[in-house]
Amino acid sequence: MTVTDTRELVHEIVREVQAELIAAFEAVERDGAPVAGLPPGTFVAAPWERPGGGGGTARVLTEGAVFERAGVNVSAVTGDEVPPSIWQERPGTRGHPYFATGVSMVLHPRNPYVPAFHANLRYFEAGDDWWFGGGMDLTPSYGFEDDARHFHRTLKAYVERHGVIEYQAAKEWCDRYFFLPHRKEMRGIGGIFFDNLHPEGEGMFERTLAFVRDGAEAIIAAYLPIVRRRLTTPYGERERSWQLYRRGRYAEFNLAFDRGTRFGLQTDGNIEAILMSLPPLARWEFQYRPEPGSPEARMASFLVPQDWAA
Amino acid sequence: MTVTDTRELVHEIVREVQAELIAAFEAVERDGAPVAGLPPGTFVAAPWERPGGGGGTARVLTEGAVFERAGVNVSAVTGDEVPPSIWQERPGTRGHPYFATGVSMVLHPRNPYVPAFHANLRYFEAGDDWWFGGGMDLTPSYGFEDDARHFHRTLKAYVERHGVIEYQAAKEWCDRYFFLPHRKEMRGIGGIFFDNLHPEGEGMFERTLAFVRDGAEAIIAAYLPIVRRRLTTPYGERERSWQLYRRGRYAEFNLAFDRGTRFGLQTDGNIEAILMSLPPLARWEFQYRPEPGSPEARMASFLVPQDWAA
Repeated sequence: MTVTDTRELVHEIVREVQAELIAAFEAVERDGAPVAGLPPGTFVAAPWERPGGGGGTARVLTEGAVFERAGVNVSAVTGDEVPPSIWQERPGTRGHPYFATGVSMVLHPRNPYVPAFHANLRYFEAGDDWWFGGGMDLTPSYGFEDDARHFHRTLKAYVERHGVIEYQAAKEWCDRYFFLPHRKEMRGIGGIFFDNLHPEGEGMFERTLAFVRDGAEAIIAAYLPIVRRRLTTPYGERERSWQLYRRGRYAEFNLAFDRGTRFGLQTDGNIEAILMSLPPLARWEFQYRPEPGSPEARMASFLVPQDWAA
Repeated sequence: MTVTDTRELVHEIVREVQAELIAAFEAVERDGAPVAGLPPGTFVAAPWERPGGGGGTARVLTEGAVFERAGVNVSAVTGDEVPPSIWQERPGTRGHPYFATGVSMVLHPRNPYVPAFHANLRYFEAGDDWWFGGGMDLTPSYGFEDDARHFHRTLKAYVERHGVIEYQAAKEWCDRYFFLPHRKEMRGIGGIFFDNLHPEGEGMFERTLAFVRDGAEAIIAAYLPIVRRRLTTPYGERERSWQLYRRGRYAEFNLAFDRGTRFGLQTDGNIEAILMSLPPLARWEFQYRPEPGSPEARMASFLVPQDWAA
């Protein structure tokens, strides 16, 4: 397999993941529209080019019936020289041109009982080196043990079915990564996270690629049953206000801590595609404390690492 | 003058600034209440202690008639050893205990035609070294040349009246500092910014302190006439939506770039007092572009450095 073949292959795979997920998300929009009393949203394509080489297509749904905003972005970019943030971790790539492709998505639902979701699956190639990275994590505003167990158990089954990453390590990496040190809480309830994945051995590239391709099925199985289960729950001003407050924490994490966002802001990336992850509306309140014993106060117990897949 | 004397003196001065400004802001609330048809807001004190030494008092107004949120925070903290971010700029302070006091404020008005305002005035002491820093800047959602000229001319007169900093340098420093590199625009229309201010010579400490003390008068003269002039302008959903969008940029700057915020997040500062600067409500929209020729589109021409005081 030549270098060019793998690039085209992975790019094609992440586009397939994008297409499959958009079809699934639009189906949820159609099913949820009567409940919300709103027309179903559809994804609109926004292609973009990178001055340095390559580009991508963000597909964005705005003001849907189920999702207040959802974006699924595919990019494939090339560069003349691996940036320091990359070669410092993988010294062998220094001075080489590079290729990077991936799919990333963020879904901010309208109903406060439906959790937000984020995932990305990415591939990097430089010189003779290549590796995959990615992750999927759930950010509810209200905690439901059933949802947490379903989400984590589905991801665990997905990871173990493929056997290219170790579940416990990926789960703990996610718990550590999506953490707001200044709030001493997780961004949500975690999921899986992996990086620098370059498994050695015959056929391991293909197995890893199959794992990435199957990510679409895993997301559909892990996230969408929770969306369908919660989107009919009635809510009012109180729940909406709490959702916006929790989204403030989401914005804090993404702007102040997320490596991908900060890397993008510092390297002249496609700003609109990068900041697509920010919530459509977010709220901050000075010294807000939910009423003790309330569903809002109980959320805190979900924002610490837990063995939900057990 | 002993070290202890100067600490107490500056701390007292910043508390006077806080008290004078709170009285002035509450007067605006009372005057604006009939226009808004809402009860006037008042500032509520939230004292806090720092585990490492010292503390402060945030005074916060929530859901007022004129200000959706306003906070004026005074702190006075001590530490056993100057942190690296300080001694790297002032090597002579390395290894010394330190004292820092200051007043900082952010006002987020309700009416989209009233600009947001931020200021801080601070003092640092370590070993034999001491210095002042601070700044004041305006962030309108809609641009008005009259307001911009009034604001900058008032600050220029204030700076030149005291002669402890150079106006043009402080104005340009502000233009550079409150800049969003990823958006290629200023956060607002600027003002003044200064740091490491340690003017040598007989009586210069006292003159600098008088400059800081007079900051309250300067803020009242520069900002409040604009507030009073704009708070009666009628507005609707369109203007509110634009204001929330602009506040998204404000949140981007503060979380991703502001040194004070980032320093606080990384050093276990008082999170609520630090993040008091974030807007009560903010909005993000994918690839939003204001209609060409609209008042919203015209705002872009205000977000580049200009010689408003000329």
